Formats: sequence, structure tokens, C-alpha cells
Amino acid sequence: MSGAALVTGARGFIGRHVARHLAGEGWRVSGIGHGDWDGPASREWGLSEWFSADVNLENLAAHAGAPALIVHCAGGATVAASIDRPHEDFQRTVATTAAVLEFARIHARGAAVVLPSSAAVYGDAAQLPIAETAALQPVSPYGVHKLMAEHLCRSYAREFGVRAAVVRLFSVYGPGLRKQLWWDACARLARKEPALFSGDGAESRDWLHVRDAAALLAMAGGRAGGDCPAVNGGSGRAVSIRELLSQLFALQDRTDKPVFTGVGRKGDPKRYCADISLARAWGWTPGTEWRKGLEEYLDWFRRDAM
Amino acid sequence: MSGAALVTGARGFIGRHVARHLAGEGWRVSGIGHGDWDGPASREWGLSEWFSADVNLENLAAHAGAPALIVHCAGGATVAASIDRPHEDFQRTVATTAAVLEFARIHARGAAVVLPSSAAVYGDAAQLPIAETAALQPVSPYGVHKLMAEHLCRSYAREFGVRAAVVRLFSVYGPGLRKQLWWDACARLARKEPALFSGDGAESRDWLHVRDAAALLAMAGGRAGGDCPAVNGGSGRAVSIRELLSQLFALQDRTDKPVFTGVGRKGDPKRYCADISLARAWGWTPGTEWRKGLEEYLDWFRRDAM
Repeated sequence: MSGAALVTGARGFIGRHVARHLAGEGWRVSGIGHGDWDGPASREWGLSEWFSADVNLENLAAHAGAPALIVHCAGGATVAASIDRPHEDFQRTVATTAAVLEFARIHARGAAVVLPSSAAVYGDAAQLPIAETAALQPVSPYGVHKLMAEHLCRSYAREFGVRAAVVRLFSVYGPGLRKQLWWDACARLARKEPALFSGDGAESRDWLHVRDAAALLAMAGGRAGGDCPAVNGGSGRAVSIRELLSQLFALQDRTDKPVFTGVGRKGDPKRYCADISLARAWGWTPGTEWRKGLEEYLDWFRRDAM
Repeated sequence: MSGAALVTGARGFIGRHVARHLAGEGWRVSGIGHGDWDGPASREWGLSEWFSADVNLENLAAHAGAPALIVHCAGGATVAASIDRPHEDFQRTVATTAAVLEFARIHARGAAVVLPSSAAVYGDAAQLPIAETAALQPVSPYGVHKLMAEHLCRSYAREFGVRAAVVRLFSVYGPGLRKQLWWDACARLARKEPALFSGDGAESRDWLHVRDAAALLAMAGGRAGGDCPAVNGGSGRAVSIRELLSQLFALQDRTDKPVFTGVGRKGDPKRYCADISLARAWGWTPGTEWRKGLEEYLDWFRRDAM
């Protein structure tokens, strides 16, 4: 595929990788979202145009033309923020998705709309690995809002023929991520702070490199349809927090071990592991193993992040 | 209970009956929503104050004080409108519910929030009567948006302790309703137009008098909690469209019978009948049987509506 693509929230961590991936496939990519992003900086990420604007129907109609593909990366960013400021998370995730779908219905007929959703829609899964058919029982506002955004996609697909697809991303990491566990751990070690972490270390996550996530989101555009398929984006491997941090410590030549408070964080399910058979059947495969990814992250952190 | 109550969309068909019911219970009722409603007209419906304003967080914070009860009657009104203008229906139903819940979380701690939802959240039910535990599979944007509003209520209840309750109303009718089947049928007969109706006449609905709906919504305020109960509001009886219209024809001394096109309307499930055991267990009981209600409606129509 190629033509005009729109990435909302293209300045964000996942958005910029999606933009770069699409540009590499030959798309002409424009972006809309919050923040100043001058020409050279956004062009470096593959964008031909950047509109610094709220993602709402009026701004989309004014700036976005009639793209053939929309990857809606704008949205709430963390479970913690959704607990602190739930209405803001609703606006960022749900209200923007409503605007994007209405834009597609009215102004970009035939466009494929891809929603990056989250494993958070599953909540505390009864069984691992989690298939797309598992119960959807989110346990945080972040997860509830992502699920509501999915409902909207399915509604617009079924009612109005908007071609849509949902990608439920598990724990996406990579160079440039300045939040969440990897960032916090690296920053703490760099500052020589005590290596004390929340939870008990046995919590597991399914880590997905952001380049692999971007490739799957782009591929989902080709699968978008009136049936609005939902596909998991993960590595298919559960890695415990203890294992991850121990590896990070080893890479930093630390001889101590991470210590855990035993107290978990609100809204964070205990275990995650994606069943990725559907994505594999689409022809996608995760390219970066987490240990490799951790080395790359640490290199970036040492070089650019401090 | 008594104290200060807020009814959003209080100028609407259900909203005004809720306002009147609450005033009758001793509440001091204020309202917010669209439309001019001068003092005497709104006072007649039990309101002490009326704010003509969009239902958003800013306006609620500015005008609504700190009510002990909020019945959120603002919202999209019909399946057909939600198909014509889905984004407007989203704004009216989902975005306003998000604002009301955030208002309760920040400005009206401890308030009970009651959401009038709809039988449309069930979609085409596999089994009648429909219990609250039935699958939630809406088949119209209207139903999807009501379900999303329910999700928000449950999320705010669970995460933030906002006391909430959901009432899934079936087909609410009564004097003053100037839309949907009863209105259309009376208007058509009055204009001596051909008595041709959509569907095949075998579609069934569960008719609930608006005064009974208002009483249940008020009662739900006392049941609101962190568990956010959902309760059906219906009569517990299915009446076919053919039976209803035949009765209407008889009341008008017409000797012909209603004729059906055989073509149903998009987004309208075939059959509805509420299981109302939960509402009955709460102590609520529907007071007006549909034939009585139809006579009352026709009296109103002849007197006031033409």
C-alpha cells in the first residue's frame, strides 16, 4: 500500500515510529497532535507535514485532507495518569477516537483506521497466554477508555462501513521511551539511588520493541475492514520484572540484586503474556528479542537520555 | 432522601418527569441542559433553577453546586438520530456522562449518580424476558454509546468511589412524547394518512409509562454505590406493535387495521421484554398498564398536541 497516511499523536513514542515505518513503505505521512515539532525534527521521523493541534473533528477536517490510512496513535499514555486525571484520559483516548472515526466517515471515505489499543482491556486475565477472544475486563480507567475506543471502532465499522482494525499492544519499549519501568530503572541506577522497586518482582510483562509494534500497526491497515479485527501485539513471551531488572543490573556490572517493596501499583494486572498466533498468521513476527532490546535501550539511555 | 438534586436534560421528556417526581419527594431540584425554559414553565415541572447550557464539566462546576443526587437524563434520544448523526449522539450521551462523573468525583463527593441507560444495550436478545445479566451486544450507535456510558459509570464507581446506578429503560411513553411510534401513529391517523407502518407488526416492545420510569430513576439514587448496580425498567410485558396499533385504531373508532410494510428499521431489534424481578425486589412496581396509558396518551394528543 501507499498514498497519503495520517498519524495522530505522531510526536509521541509509538506515533513517531509508526510515521517512520510508513514513510519507509512509501507513504506520504502527515501528523497531527500536541506539541511544537519543527520541520527538520519531524522530517527526520518521516513526516511531510505536522499540525500542532488538538485531535478533534474540526482540526482533522481543516488539516488532514483525505488520507487512505489513519493510525490513531494519540491517546492517554499511562495507567497511573488515568487514575490521577481520568477525565483527561477519557478526552485523549475516547473523544479523539470518536473524532477520527467521524472524520473517516465523512471526509475520508474508504480510509483504513487503525487503533492502537492495549492489553489493559483484558484486565487480570484468567489464563495465559491471552488470546483476542479472552474476556474484556479492564481494571483501570486507562483500560476502560481503550475498550470504549474499541467499541466505537466496531460500531463505525459495522454501521457505517468505516474500515477499522484494533491492535492490542502489550508492553511497548524502545529507545526514546522516557517513562515507565525501563526509564525509571535506568534513571534510578544512573542516579545511584537505592534499587527498590514496587511489586514483588514476580509480575510478568510481554515486552514488544516499538519498531515491531510500528510494523504491526502498519500491517493492520491492510487488514482493516467492516469486521474490525482485533489483534494482539506482543512477543508471545512473559518476562518477570525480576528477570528484566536482574538483566539490567548485570548489563550495568552491578553485583547487587533488585529489591521489591512487595506492594503493587493500582490498576496494574499481575501477569501479561500475549497469544500472538493471529498476528503471526497475518505474516508479522516480532523481530527483537527483549535482551537485545534492553542492550539497545541502555545504549540509547547512556548516549542521549542523561 | 432529600436535599439538592440535579437533573441534566431536565427539559426533555424523561427529564421533566424525573424533576417533578423528585420535587414531589421533597428534593430541591435544579436542572441543566439545552433550550430556553422560562421560570414559570420550568417551575411547573418542579425545578427551582434551570441553566440553559451544554452539559460539560465547566458548566457543571459553575452552576450545579454540590448536589446529593444527579439524574443524568441528558443524552441522545433515538436510534434513528444516532445513525444519521453518530458523532452528535456520542457527544450527547458519552461525553456528557464523562463530564457528570468527573463533576461528581471532584465537586460533588458522595453524590449518587443515576444513568438512564436503555434496553438498546442488549441488542437482539437471545432470550426473553431479558435479565440484567444478559449479553450486552448493542446493534446501533445509540446502544453502543449507552453501553459506553455504562462502562464509564462502573469505572468511576470502582476506581473513585463515585456512587452510581444504571437504569436500563425499555420503551418509555407518556403524554408529552412527540416522537417515535405513539406520536407517529397518532399524528398519521389525525392527518388521515394511510395507516402503513414499518416492520411486520410482530415486533414486540415493553412499554413503560414515563411516570413509572421517573419513579424507578429516583429510587435508583438510593441504590447507587461502588458496585454500580444495573436494573431493568420495563413493565415485564411484551406487546406487539400490531396489538398496540390495533388498540389505538379501536380507541379512534376506526374499522380498518394497521398495514405493515414488512421492512424493519435499521438498528431496531425485533423483540423486547424486560425481566423486572430486580426492580420489583427493590420495591418498585410499574403502575400504569399500557392500555390505560394509551388512553391517557390519546387524550393528551387530542387536547394538547395538535
